[in-house]
Amino acid sequence: MSTDATHATHATAPDGTVTEEVVRSLRGTADPRLRELLTALVRHLHAFARETRLTREEWERAIGFLTATGQACTDTRQEFILLSDVLGLSMLVETINGDHTPGATEPTVLGPFHMTDSPVREPGATIDLLGDGEPCVVSGRVLSRDGTPLPGARLDVWQANAQGFYDVQQPDVQPPGNGRGLFTADAEGRFRFRTCLPSPYPIPTDGPVGALLRATGRHPYRPAHIHFIVSAEGHTPVTTHVFVAGGEHLDSDAVFAVRQSLVQDFTPVDDPELAREFGVRNPFRHARFDLVLEPS
Amino acid sequence: MSTDATHATHATAPDGTVTEEVVRSLRGTADPRLRELLTALVRHLHAFARETRLTREEWERAIGFLTATGQACTDTRQEFILLSDVLGLSMLVETINGDHTPGATEPTVLGPFHMTDSPVREPGATIDLLGDGEPCVVSGRVLSRDGTPLPGARLDVWQANAQGFYDVQQPDVQPPGNGRGLFTADAEGRFRFRTCLPSPYPIPTDGPVGALLRATGRHPYRPAHIHFIVSAEGHTPVTTHVFVAGGEHLDSDAVFAVRQSLVQDFTPVDDPELAREFGVRNPFRHARFDLVLEPS
Repeated sequence: MSTDATHATHATAPDGTVTEEVVRSLRGTADPRLRELLTALVRHLHAFARETRLTREEWERAIGFLTATGQACTDTRQEFILLSDVLGLSMLVETINGDHTPGATEPTVLGPFHMTDSPVREPGATIDLLGDGEPCVVSGRVLSRDGTPLPGARLDVWQANAQGFYDVQQPDVQPPGNGRGLFTADAEGRFRFRTCLPSPYPIPTDGPVGALLRATGRHPYRPAHIHFIVSAEGHTPVTTHVFVAGGEHLDSDAVFAVRQSLVQDFTPVDDPELAREFGVRNPFRHARFDLVLEPS
Repeated sequence: MSTDATHATHATAPDGTVTEEVVRSLRGTADPRLRELLTALVRHLHAFARETRLTREEWERAIGFLTATGQACTDTRQEFILLSDVLGLSMLVETINGDHTPGATEPTVLGPFHMTDSPVREPGATIDLLGDGEPCVVSGRVLSRDGTPLPGARLDVWQANAQGFYDVQQPDVQPPGNGRGLFTADAEGRFRFRTCLPSPYPIPTDGPVGALLRATGRHPYRPAHIHFIVSAEGHTPVTTHVFVAGGEHLDSDAVFAVRQSLVQDFTPVDDPELAREFGVRNPFRHARFDLVLEPS
């Protein structure tokens, strides 16, 4: 402006002090933790823009991307969790909060598909309501870290079907609760259920996160896995996966969730009698592992 | 897991190397600028989570907040721009990209309400189609930085009405284009239009951004202003506001957009003859300033 008038305001100085002005504006935040989080967020967000000399066009594209991500979310799809997953943030948050003690089962990400209640199922029941995959038995014990069995421990289990889709992704093909089950460990802490062998699958790629993966030349696949949330009285629950040893993409999981200790053998078994006892077709796969909780 | 089996995978190490793993996964990004932006984003996002030891519950609340922000966006509302504005990011991006030369008009934020085409209006026309505010004349010249007038310069102008709402916020009350106009400077670079005196107004507070402001104890007000995008052949366009000197909230703009040089006197005038010449009721306010562009 070519006017020479000056006015008594505390206007923003031209270069960079806007960050300190925003941080000052957060001083009145009632919750001290929220103030801490927002202050750190503003400092990192501004440092990112300064370091990269973010252009207006790039800012506009980022606004458009975030808007599309929010608008892709529905009752059965959480695109922002997917974004957090492919940026490794979800895994990092698990790592930070793991409080993991050697000997206890390591946690990994929840993922975006734990959005409905798993049906309560009897011990040994199948979660594969369509029976269209390679038959599989999963069994083991829930233990406290000192090896004590945990009777009555609860196992919330969910997985994709043999074609790599969760029930909520295919409401016309899969009955609700397919691939899901809520099991209770017996008096010796033992659990067992039937399912189909999980297969690798791509995360949903028809939304903004899929476009991001394509732009970065990354494949969308997750190695084959079964999700677990295991809880027992007096113990810290663990949210984790079990991965199928020897499968594809174990070294390039689209969401960075693989931990060495979570990779388990799903052993081929050819034993008609055992198959009959478990109630599966012969031959089948058998995964045997214990899940170990930390006393709280 | 209590199994001793080991498998030849490159699984994520337990503490913190997930960041480097994500950065490595971006190596295949075809566009080098996108790779640079995403790498910096991942580093800052992860550093933020580590520094604050972000909990799972806080992460969940953040996912919920971002989802709600995306879902609050419509054809006439851009909640993510509003979020960027109240975090000072929009103003920072303007500052970084301002390439501001002393003597040229300083830029400030675009804001979320430049979403419809401004109607083409004749010189001297009013943009206040309801005539319900304090009458106001805005006039001046568009100049190149060396003082040369810029005939035919275009001025895209928009402002809230006397009650503090933009036309798109009140489709039932305001006709489309109220408070907006696209003007062309005359052969001497002069512009003039009529309007109502802008008043301070709150940014929309009925969405996630409003909840954020309440949690931080911040008021939602913006000081009174008129938006401009000024362009002329051979010059870099400028996106800016003119603020009303002496008004409220000039030192605490909710979106940090005030710059000292953009604050202008809206002088009270009691001159029936001049009012008649301009076509406004007497008394009225008169703001006179020049807008100065940098040769491109």
